[in-house]
Amino acid sequence: MSDAVLFATSNHGKLKEARVILAPYGITVESIDAKGEEIQADSTAKVAAHSAKAAAARLGRAVLVEDAGLSVDSLNGFPGPYSAYVLRTIGIAGIIELLGKSSRRGAHFSSSVAYCEPSESPRVFEGIVEGRVAGSPAGRNGFGFDPIFIAKGHRKTFGELTTEEKSGLSHRGTALRKFAAWYTSPATQ
Amino acid sequence: MSDAVLFATSNHGKLKEARVILAPYGITVESIDAKGEEIQADSTAKVAAHSAKAAAARLGRAVLVEDAGLSVDSLNGFPGPYSAYVLRTIGIAGIIELLGKSSRRGAHFSSSVAYCEPSESPRVFEGIVEGRVAGSPAGRNGFGFDPIFIAKGHRKTFGELTTEEKSGLSHRGTALRKFAAWYTSPATQ
Repeated sequence: MSDAVLFATSNHGKLKEARVILAPYGITVESIDAKGEEIQADSTAKVAAHSAKAAAARLGRAVLVEDAGLSVDSLNGFPGPYSAYVLRTIGIAGIIELLGKSSRRGAHFSSSVAYCEPSESPRVFEGIVEGRVAGSPAGRNGFGFDPIFIAKGHRKTFGELTTEEKSGLSHRGTALRKFAAWYTSPATQ
Repeated sequence: MSDAVLFATSNHGKLKEARVILAPYGITVESIDAKGEEIQADSTAKVAAHSAKAAAARLGRAVLVEDAGLSVDSLNGFPGPYSAYVLRTIGIAGIIELLGKSSRRGAHFSSSVAYCEPSESPRVFEGIVEGRVAGSPAGRNGFGFDPIFIAKGHRKTFGELTTEEKSGLSHRGTALRKFAAWYTSPATQ
């Protein structure tokens, strides 16, 4: 097994974070803009596993896929696995609008990282970060819903943190570090 | 080709409408609760085509699948192909909340009916009905977003119409009649 992994994503923000998170493990990240079709599923884990299996089969190479979502408690988990679509349509402003001045702003980000070798079953690694939706957007770092998410115990949104700061506590950081621990363990080599 | 079609749906409202719409063509409708996995796609046509092909392959029988969505102009088409998920999470109240008192309430319902024989490519028939989002929900008929959709030139929501009235002008009615015309044409038999 090589020390480089192929990350199927068209999201430059995700790629940047993956490189920051995996570098300490000696894992370099190549990327390919070929995540392929996504299924409509009620969890990021199912979406990532399905996409990784399809991409590995199509590319004939081991591949890493990540799917993430923001789930707002008082909105029954919305937008969840459809976060990318919701961001493109109603956007951050839509989430703020839906919550209004409500004090029920609890939310979490979840990340599912799936790694799949051709003809094998995908392995999925998950990460969650609990927090809340900010009253208004703040910060220009990160991507997606980062400007309105504040992790528990913090005051700044993910959009106000550096990539390094965010990755230390983010859902994606947790999931990718679990993957890295498995990928670099002697038993896996 | 028989005069009965197998409709893969778990939605009793859809099944009821399909029976009303297809009866005048001499087509009877059987149903099976096995739509299978849906892909995340930006159109109901892609979702329906993919689902029909997968279901036909799995069942070894010709199958009909329908996917529908409400698209609100001022929300960039949201909720579109994710209407079912959005209904389960933020619901009708969420759409009303997002539009607030805005006068920009233009919207359309679209329906894609896909028919697929095993080992063949799916045929897709489409229907659209233009209209607007009501200021508040009205009516208990239909399902989904029917209580907040008013077709162009009408005053009642789809939720206030009978199945027969709604089917005469609905997106689903148009799509299913296109399918029926093709299915019963001498060239198809």
